[in-house]
Amino acid sequence: MRMVDVIHTKRAGKQLTDEQIQFFVDGVVSGDIPDYQISALLMAIFFQGMTSEEQAKLTMTMMKSGDHLDLSQIPGVKVDKHSTGGVGDKTSIPLAAVVAALGIPVPMISGRGLGHTGGTLDKLEAIPGYQVEISEDDFIAQLKKDQLAIIGATGNIAPADKKIYALRDVTDTVDSIPLIASSIMSKKIASGADALVIDVKTGAGAFMKTLDDSRALAKALVEIGKGVGMQCMALITDMNQPLGDAVGNALEIQESIDLLKGNGPADLEKLIVVIGGYMAVMGGQAETTEEGQQKCATVIHNGQALERFRAMIADQGGDPAVIDDPEHVLPQAQFKIDLPAPSSGVVSKIVADEIGIASMLLGGGRQKADDQLDYAVGIMLHKKIGDQVKTGESLLTIYSNRDDVDDIKKRLYDNIEISESANKPTLVYETVE
Amino acid sequence: MRMVDVIHTKRAGKQLTDEQIQFFVDGVVSGDIPDYQISALLMAIFFQGMTSEEQAKLTMTMMKSGDHLDLSQIPGVKVDKHSTGGVGDKTSIPLAAVVAALGIPVPMISGRGLGHTGGTLDKLEAIPGYQVEISEDDFIAQLKKDQLAIIGATGNIAPADKKIYALRDVTDTVDSIPLIASSIMSKKIASGADALVIDVKTGAGAFMKTLDDSRALAKALVEIGKGVGMQCMALITDMNQPLGDAVGNALEIQESIDLLKGNGPADLEKLIVVIGGYMAVMGGQAETTEEGQQKCATVIHNGQALERFRAMIADQGGDPAVIDDPEHVLPQAQFKIDLPAPSSGVVSKIVADEIGIASMLLGGGRQKADDQLDYAVGIMLHKKIGDQVKTGESLLTIYSNRDDVDDIKKRLYDNIEISESANKPTLVYETVE
Repeated sequence: MRMVDVIHTKRAGKQLTDEQIQFFVDGVVSGDIPDYQISALLMAIFFQGMTSEEQAKLTMTMMKSGDHLDLSQIPGVKVDKHSTGGVGDKTSIPLAAVVAALGIPVPMISGRGLGHTGGTLDKLEAIPGYQVEISEDDFIAQLKKDQLAIIGATGNIAPADKKIYALRDVTDTVDSIPLIASSIMSKKIASGADALVIDVKTGAGAFMKTLDDSRALAKALVEIGKGVGMQCMALITDMNQPLGDAVGNALEIQESIDLLKGNGPADLEKLIVVIGGYMAVMGGQAETTEEGQQKCATVIHNGQALERFRAMIADQGGDPAVIDDPEHVLPQAQFKIDLPAPSSGVVSKIVADEIGIASMLLGGGRQKADDQLDYAVGIMLHKKIGDQVKTGESLLTIYSNRDDVDDIKKRLYDNIEISESANKPTLVYETVE
Repeated sequence: MRMVDVIHTKRAGKQLTDEQIQFFVDGVVSGDIPDYQISALLMAIFFQGMTSEEQAKLTMTMMKSGDHLDLSQIPGVKVDKHSTGGVGDKTSIPLAAVVAALGIPVPMISGRGLGHTGGTLDKLEAIPGYQVEISEDDFIAQLKKDQLAIIGATGNIAPADKKIYALRDVTDTVDSIPLIASSIMSKKIASGADALVIDVKTGAGAFMKTLDDSRALAKALVEIGKGVGMQCMALITDMNQPLGDAVGNALEIQESIDLLKGNGPADLEKLIVVIGGYMAVMGGQAETTEEGQQKCATVIHNGQALERFRAMIADQGGDPAVIDDPEHVLPQAQFKIDLPAPSSGVVSKIVADEIGIASMLLGGGRQKADDQLDYAVGIMLHKKIGDQVKTGESLLTIYSNRDDVDDIKKRLYDNIEISESANKPTLVYETVE
């Protein structure tokens, strides 16, 4: 078999055979297929798409290209959650603690941020001492004890995806539904969970800008998951404005702790309760999503979820004092600079990806994969879309370790609009099951 | 500027700016743009195409990426001819001698064959001693003396194209009209000719399989040439069956000599006279194409073109005895194996690319760029489409240096059809000026 013929098949809009997909994935892992042929195929897939059969085969072949976690020693239905990524999206962190507090094991293998989106691992590393790299044995032991662990990939998970993902980033082939779906699901299936809820973000701050694209991605993801016998569903949720108020690593940990103390922003708590309701049913701890939601709200407000979070931090080497005294444990920015509203009215627009870029430019995110992060910096929103504001009132606070933030201020002013009126945006658009 | 943004512009179907094209070509030549980004852009160009402005800019930028021959010392209008490549297409060799015999300088810079198509340089190298690599000074001196030289690229002609061409071959992005057109024209403009006739082959043995695609390519080529002030026109000619009777390097030199002695196959002579007629007008040696054609026929049959060919061979180090005694000078195959007709009737199909592949598999062509050639081998057709044949009569002779050619015979039988009736195919479909 020749790679140029595999490219030709897809370029011509035909379905790749199982043998062609196997040949491709094997060649990516072994290094026998050069990068320039991989990227040519990726671009052909961008234009021609893939059938359900091809997506399923590509996913499973990438999954089998590496290690596969065996979580069968852990009793109960293991439920995981994945987000396609957004700005201020710290949901996974408090949500995992909430679901674990219901007695459901949450074996969460997360990633890092790139560009305007943050990453769960980066946020957790803002907690001094927190280790995201732990052994498979320790991961399983911690899950048995706490029902909760959030770590980076152990061993050699989906090495084909690792290579392909790096190439997609530099060849403008990131936003291809079959490539996104197979990348996410190959890693999630390898991670050994029995059930998965996927939060597909939609809007300016998401990879999928339109509801149609988001729906297509959600369907592809759920179909692949169900095809391998996983319980799987997706929600399509808003990412036009940032989620919650905090954008930035330490700021988002602070907000997660606030939430688990019952003082979180309303949109974040609502999303956690909604997703947690589905996870509770999948994990066998609720008959209905309504019952599941009720239970989630309870453990948020009675402190049980907070205790799970404290246990996880301690087990993974982090300083548990962060729970009771976050301002002294988390890194703090040197400068806190308010952004006064230029006029009175109602906030009608906060462009999520531009807020993410502003945080990145302060040092809170990566422009390149090997950039160092400044955990302390970021942005704290005081107004969200639909909120009243008066001239001179602070729209947000910039947390910075540099004193001149005129570039950041300009970018923020350019991407926040105040109008006569505006409604609160919809948070959850629809579910795909 | 970032290459990923250049890829994004084209992927989205937008026109690349002059600056983006310059950035791309500079980065290809310097090596700053990695192969995987080049190939992603090539695939995006395959799907999205290019405007006339983009094609012209890409051509000129690739041309300027390397050396540019200055032929101004040579008096007269320098006229070149290019073929997009086919099977048995030795046209350039006798045609160049014919036009030179009219007193028109023909500075021909040719290429090698790959896959099922042959290359002019490979054919000439079947003549013992013939040197295709000569210095620019010797090239100009020979053109002044003989009006004729056929050589490989001197110096560093269009290095960006060299790199891009190699990548296209392995990423299935060969048959893209803007990429073909800019590749051909960047080299032809750099070669310094004042006028150019392009023979765009169409049909099974050509890159362009349909008349529509061939017409689009011809228009793109002519538009680019005229855009830089070159006299430029194209003919669209048949490549469903091989051109002439001989396929194979030494066999095609033999046929070229036969033609220049007035004993060539009718289709080959007709094509040479037709193309030569246009070149005669461009070169100022005829008022009309009819007059040009008449003059071409004259120098074919009075031996003047043959003498030009003899002079060129001698000047480029080849053994001029090949003219008078080709069978003793050219390498000869060990085995000559006839292919008897399986039935009586009229030959209705001879699939050109498959005949080219048969010759390649005998050793006459390259599967990979560094394959060694066996100049002696090939195929000599005795029947062409429209010819009567009787059962057992020889359709063709296989010239081979291996004695078992059952694989070749099977391939040939599979690709030659005999029916009740068939017309001689059209040779020249149309011209584009």
